[in-house]
Amino acid sequence: MIIIGEKLNGFIKSTGEAIACRNEAYLKDLIMRQKQAGADYLDLCVADGEHEADTLNWLVSLAESVCDLPVCLDSPNPETIAAVLPKCRRAGIINSVSLEAGKIETLFPLLAQSDWSIIALLCSNAGVPEHAEGRLELFERILEAAARFGIDESRLLIDPVLHSLSTEESSFLTFAACARAIRKRSPKVHIVSGLSNISFGLPARAMVNRAFLVLAMQAGMDGAILNPLDRDLMGLLYAARALLGEDEYCMDYISAYREDRFGC
Amino acid sequence: MIIIGEKLNGFIKSTGEAIACRNEAYLKDLIMRQKQAGADYLDLCVADGEHEADTLNWLVSLAESVCDLPVCLDSPNPETIAAVLPKCRRAGIINSVSLEAGKIETLFPLLAQSDWSIIALLCSNAGVPEHAEGRLELFERILEAAARFGIDESRLLIDPVLHSLSTEESSFLTFAACARAIRKRSPKVHIVSGLSNISFGLPARAMVNRAFLVLAMQAGMDGAILNPLDRDLMGLLYAARALLGEDEYCMDYISAYREDRFGC
Repeated sequence: MIIIGEKLNGFIKSTGEAIACRNEAYLKDLIMRQKQAGADYLDLCVADGEHEADTLNWLVSLAESVCDLPVCLDSPNPETIAAVLPKCRRAGIINSVSLEAGKIETLFPLLAQSDWSIIALLCSNAGVPEHAEGRLELFERILEAAARFGIDESRLLIDPVLHSLSTEESSFLTFAACARAIRKRSPKVHIVSGLSNISFGLPARAMVNRAFLVLAMQAGMDGAILNPLDRDLMGLLYAARALLGEDEYCMDYISAYREDRFGC
Repeated sequence: MIIIGEKLNGFIKSTGEAIACRNEAYLKDLIMRQKQAGADYLDLCVADGEHEADTLNWLVSLAESVCDLPVCLDSPNPETIAAVLPKCRRAGIINSVSLEAGKIETLFPLLAQSDWSIIALLCSNAGVPEHAEGRLELFERILEAAARFGIDESRLLIDPVLHSLSTEESSFLTFAACARAIRKRSPKVHIVSGLSNISFGLPARAMVNRAFLVLAMQAGMDGAILNPLDRDLMGLLYAARALLGEDEYCMDYISAYREDRFGC
């Protein structure tokens, strides 16, 4: 399971303020706590329109100064990513590409010349197809583009896209159908999602996010952008891995417990 | 989802003491709190070898005096159940039958003449088969016996049996394989499990129990013996139902939240 820590995101109010006033101590603490909690990557989203590339560069340097976790460069703007990526010390993940005009053309050449991975959303200029079939057609087009640029499928993290359950009743079922089909089509591709979209507009959102994580893992999802500081979420993640036969003798579950990543 | 409240069980130390000293106030409180938390049935297990039938009769009367929930008569001894069942005001669930000698012969005739349902474990005198195939053979034998006694399949709650994950790595996978096959074979039969066996011997057991509940629901389980006073467990249950498309517009999820069954 690839765990991408979500806390360094400027759209989270406290993080946004810390980025705006360059509060290094606050951000370093968030970095270290996510690492200790089990994050494999740090998502970095500065949400700073005007100076996005500069601010993202600064945040990457800050993260690299305190730990060895690779970063997940999170920007809707491929130009920002193209500007920051060459300055990163380690290969990480680009978040994200889609079939919207210009994105693949800007980002896949960068991937071809590096060891970076990339999150690819199943949407195009026409939006996100309602049904799994339409999204899987977009998946095929992403696979074709990756092959054209010589990018191995193991470097693709496919996000089948998750709408809010409160507005789209079959949101998870469509996601799960995509995940199962993708897993069958390519065992090397990763399947990833942010957890929080699913619960938008509902009360006690953490409950929906947690149940989604467990259900999506059974459908084949092997990566998630999540809050690793949510101890109950992490407990469920390790428990689900063990239940699904991905943790021999529950060794990882027990280790994570001993490292105080979950439990009372 | 059929929710069977597990708290009135003499093997739980505090409940056992309350039963032993006939502490009606304590037990009435447990009854009412489980009802308010969303239980559909109250499991009653007195764990009182010598006077089991008398004590169970007393506990049934107590439950019936304070609420209208049907009971789930929980005893390994079919004679105890046969003695208590006729005195119950409402038809409930018998917990449990199996293919062990004498059980079906004692309990199925009682079912044939009543509206009671029954939990049937997939085990025989030879124990619990290791693989799903063996358990499904026992399921067929239970179906045959039910047909012989004219018991409709909708009155059967099949427990595929859950071993501890710490001693049997594929415990959940075997359970899920049984659940999927049973669901396919008979859409009317219910599939049920107690949650706590799976986590025996592991730390932070609640995490494993909760992840199991969510995963098993996806595999087709539609009943559980659980602690409805565990708010996080109930939140996950309602969330999983909504995610799995069993809760139109998340109405039940939102109602349960408003009734304070989960959430902060």
